[in-house]
Amino acid sequence: MIARKLEVTYLPYDRTTRVPPGTTLFSAAHWIGLPIDSTCGGRGTCGKCKVRVINGRRDAETADHRQLRPSEIEDGWRLSCQTHIHEDMTCEVPALLRVPKAATMGLGRLVILDPNVRKVYFELAEPSMEDQRSDIARLKDALTAEGHDMIAGVAVLRTLPPVFREAGFRVTAVLAGENLVAVEPGDTTGDCYGVAFDVGTTTLVGTLMNLRTGMAASVLSTLNGQAPFGADVISRISHGMNGPEAIRELQDAVVTTMNSVLDDLYRETGVTPQQTYEAVVVGNVTMLHLLLGVDPTPLSMSPFTPAFMDQLNVEAREVGLHIHPHGYVQTLPALGAYVGADIVAGVLATGVVREDRLRVFVDVGTNGEIVLGSAQRALATAAPAGPAFEGSQIRCGMRATVGAIEGVTISDVIELQIIGGDVPAQGICGSGLVDAVAQLLLAGLLDHSGRLRLREDVPNHPLRDRLIDVDGVRAFLLADGVYLTQKDIRELQFAKGSIAAGIKVLMDILGVGPQDLDQVLLGGSFGSYLNPESAKIIGLVPAVDVDRIIAVGNSAGEGAKIALLSYRERQVAFELPSRIEYVELSGRPDFNDSFIGVLGFPQLAPVR
Amino acid sequence: MIARKLEVTYLPYDRTTRVPPGTTLFSAAHWIGLPIDSTCGGRGTCGKCKVRVINGRRDAETADHRQLRPSEIEDGWRLSCQTHIHEDMTCEVPALLRVPKAATMGLGRLVILDPNVRKVYFELAEPSMEDQRSDIARLKDALTAEGHDMIAGVAVLRTLPPVFREAGFRVTAVLAGENLVAVEPGDTTGDCYGVAFDVGTTTLVGTLMNLRTGMAASVLSTLNGQAPFGADVISRISHGMNGPEAIRELQDAVVTTMNSVLDDLYRETGVTPQQTYEAVVVGNVTMLHLLLGVDPTPLSMSPFTPAFMDQLNVEAREVGLHIHPHGYVQTLPALGAYVGADIVAGVLATGVVREDRLRVFVDVGTNGEIVLGSAQRALATAAPAGPAFEGSQIRCGMRATVGAIEGVTISDVIELQIIGGDVPAQGICGSGLVDAVAQLLLAGLLDHSGRLRLREDVPNHPLRDRLIDVDGVRAFLLADGVYLTQKDIRELQFAKGSIAAGIKVLMDILGVGPQDLDQVLLGGSFGSYLNPESAKIIGLVPAVDVDRIIAVGNSAGEGAKIALLSYRERQVAFELPSRIEYVELSGRPDFNDSFIGVLGFPQLAPVR
Repeated sequence: MIARKLEVTYLPYDRTTRVPPGTTLFSAAHWIGLPIDSTCGGRGTCGKCKVRVINGRRDAETADHRQLRPSEIEDGWRLSCQTHIHEDMTCEVPALLRVPKAATMGLGRLVILDPNVRKVYFELAEPSMEDQRSDIARLKDALTAEGHDMIAGVAVLRTLPPVFREAGFRVTAVLAGENLVAVEPGDTTGDCYGVAFDVGTTTLVGTLMNLRTGMAASVLSTLNGQAPFGADVISRISHGMNGPEAIRELQDAVVTTMNSVLDDLYRETGVTPQQTYEAVVVGNVTMLHLLLGVDPTPLSMSPFTPAFMDQLNVEAREVGLHIHPHGYVQTLPALGAYVGADIVAGVLATGVVREDRLRVFVDVGTNGEIVLGSAQRALATAAPAGPAFEGSQIRCGMRATVGAIEGVTISDVIELQIIGGDVPAQGICGSGLVDAVAQLLLAGLLDHSGRLRLREDVPNHPLRDRLIDVDGVRAFLLADGVYLTQKDIRELQFAKGSIAAGIKVLMDILGVGPQDLDQVLLGGSFGSYLNPESAKIIGLVPAVDVDRIIAVGNSAGEGAKIALLSYRERQVAFELPSRIEYVELSGRPDFNDSFIGVLGFPQLAPVR
Repeated sequence: MIARKLEVTYLPYDRTTRVPPGTTLFSAAHWIGLPIDSTCGGRGTCGKCKVRVINGRRDAETADHRQLRPSEIEDGWRLSCQTHIHEDMTCEVPALLRVPKAATMGLGRLVILDPNVRKVYFELAEPSMEDQRSDIARLKDALTAEGHDMIAGVAVLRTLPPVFREAGFRVTAVLAGENLVAVEPGDTTGDCYGVAFDVGTTTLVGTLMNLRTGMAASVLSTLNGQAPFGADVISRISHGMNGPEAIRELQDAVVTTMNSVLDDLYRETGVTPQQTYEAVVVGNVTMLHLLLGVDPTPLSMSPFTPAFMDQLNVEAREVGLHIHPHGYVQTLPALGAYVGADIVAGVLATGVVREDRLRVFVDVGTNGEIVLGSAQRALATAAPAGPAFEGSQIRCGMRATVGAIEGVTISDVIELQIIGGDVPAQGICGSGLVDAVAQLLLAGLLDHSGRLRLREDVPNHPLRDRLIDVDGVRAFLLADGVYLTQKDIRELQFAKGSIAAGIKVLMDILGVGPQDLDQVLLGGSFGSYLNPESAKIIGLVPAVDVDRIIAVGNSAGEGAKIALLSYRERQVAFELPSRIEYVELSGRPDFNDSFIGVLGFPQLAPVR
């Protein structure tokens, strides 16, 4: 499936990268962060991305003949965005003429501000008997002269005759990619917004971005309005099985939630829907199916087949999203039925798959989504973890809200970190659970098979009185009325064992061990709260130095923002499915073997 | 504006043609009717159109590398549809492997059945744990294997999961170009229809075509429902000036008319809207603006600027046309504000601009649209003729309905041809008017300046009593109560003079005279009824042998049918605006000079 890679060297930088056949010189350079000039972002229309091919095939394409002089073509200059790599190549890159606006986003990624949405102000020549071009041709010619391609739908076309004439042919064209979104009277280039949405099964985060400055105007999160139809994707899909009306209900619920977030963002910032031209939306495969009203039923049963996995670009009015009526909704692609656009966004935000360092990215939740690799080769999979990490199926489990124990330290005494500060503990959430188990292990109150010790086993332990019996089951008392049962610990073992086994399968395929890992990245909202040391102690993640285990925060939302701000980064996201090999765990004998092998807790060298 | 042409020679046929730079080898061959194999119609996906480049630049493009073997590329084989002509070239065309289905349409044009709408039946592999491709990827892969590209919108995507599973993955994909229109359960390839519409200001003709056989299933015409808003385009535009609601009214009127034609076509044939996937619509620029709800106001005043002139491809639901809900409406391009898609269709149907013969195509109506030229060079213009030819502004004028004099012969007696046969004459329509004036000229009752003689001027003429006086104006009595006044004749002189002057201007630009013309083609419904001899006698058309003046019937509707049945011919129509130079008459001094020169009637050698 993954073809032999080809080697490309860029001079004078002397940077070399290996890419799949068919990649463009422009795209390959961008993957390794090497700047090549471009105003059209690689669409072949601006002519600025020319490079000189020194070694390798250098057929001139139509766009080359259009943009370059014959003498340049003779000398080997080609548009790097039009030159596909079919053999090993060497080329020379001219120095950048201008310093692009850039920002550090995600996990230390330098993102060049180059949004898919662009505004261009024109003072067009007025029609005359000598110049009877149609309104649309007049605009298209002006855009072509600036290096932009353009396609206009009828809805926007209808606005042209009145806007052109009311504005005296001084207008601002708004493009989303090649699509003409709007023509606005006067110069409105100062107002240009987009929104990045991370649609989680539980929580939905929307960030309104100023596409001119690259800054967030405001960010808001709220619960997904689909909650009444079930807490997890499987119960949502089950509801959808009631027929098209039920799918519609689920779609309406999430769109309504997104629109309420948008309305609040608009209210807070004074930005209008008419100034918000694009939404980049990420989420798991089920969430994106439901957002678009596509039946997700086959996702819930073997062989887990989605209706679509590729990125989609849909008119906002088709989704009912409350941005510019002719604006667009762009989703990112998925890697598999259970490794969705949220993970692709996470990979974009962390740069796994683009650097030489070997890293594993893990998004811990009901499923553990895992991406392991580097620029050389990368693998992805999803390990079914069950609801333990979300505090469900745990006797005193709860979501990470006020009153939840989110951190535990056990020495001679027990110290609890409770969300909300000085409130009584009401239960324990996922990160608290992982901490508690890790600390019990370190304290010798839990053995490495996962069995809680009895008071008589640890007669001298200062906390031995906390080893209690609840309805005939062993348990450990954390706080008044809040305890951890033997069964809870077993649930956690299954959950972490599944994810650890998934990581192990991928490491075995790559032929690497924990010692080869440069970093372990914990993604998702859960990952941000997880204590890296505890994650290592319970064996959820490979045994690497704790300072190499990094919480990367809401990497999905961060990836969506990056795709909103950078057309080139968006293209990288689109290419990720062809760069990352998807590994299906279910039915793999080595997964089952690994799973059994990692159910217990690891014997680690003493930490600190 | 028109670049220097390049010469291409095709072997073994030894056929040579001259084309604008940038034309593909495939397209250039098609223009001269030279068959090159292709199943994708020139989209670069089937790989069947390969030719061997013998002389000229032969850069291999990406599609070449995808479709051809390295040894073929080495030998100079290229996809002709991907090879753009940038210098004089010679290439070798392989013999056709199969004889394509073809029909003679329009003016003796051989049209290969190769519709833009295609149906492909698949028995797809069912998903399994080893093959978890998404539904859309599964279909796309199957289509790619057959040489088809595909883009799917969300609306069609929604239908995939249920249709695939209900039909056991045996489905028919319906493509309109690259757009996936539908996925139907089972094998429905036998049922595939489209509709060709000629939307005239007065009359609307719809032809339901079987796209599998290329035969018309049924044809119907009716009056344009916009009639209450005025008889001609200017009054329609005036109504539209009342604001967006009025434009909406005009749009609704024409869409409702089209839908009523469709409903009747469906009723008559048993075909359903769901089996009708595409509509090709031609009409003048104003009609197409109104059909799409675009404000035509600027068309009615200098400098006569349309909002659009290029072809548009619009979803049927966006127009409200009653075909498949995800089907498409395709319009043809226009050449100028008053030389619309109906004329482009007429040029397609007559092949003017594609043969070496020098011909002039004239569509006589409120405007006379004129296209003069051959494959070497072609010009187009519109001459304002006023309403005389439509029987308006003529004292006893009427439309061509029952009771109208449509033909006149004058010798010692007067013979009238009346629509409806044995009914009393109620008035005279355009073709009768032209006949009457021509016959009066021949009979010596009208002088060449256009002045009716007085009885005393022709004392011995057997019909001299018919020279009468109506309200102090000279007139000729045709039938009881039906006469032709001096003013009517002046109106006709202005009308025919304008068109004749338009033809003259174009002939002067090309540097040709009537003796160089191979044919005069009379298009439009009026052209079909016009007596070619009379048209020549009054000087409406250049003085060529009468047998070279040919009525070509509803060439607009015929061109729409051709574009519906043949993707390649449709591409030809799309290219026509870049092949035909548009000449604006208003303000041209030579037009005014010619107009004055041809106001009178020509002195012809005696005919027959």
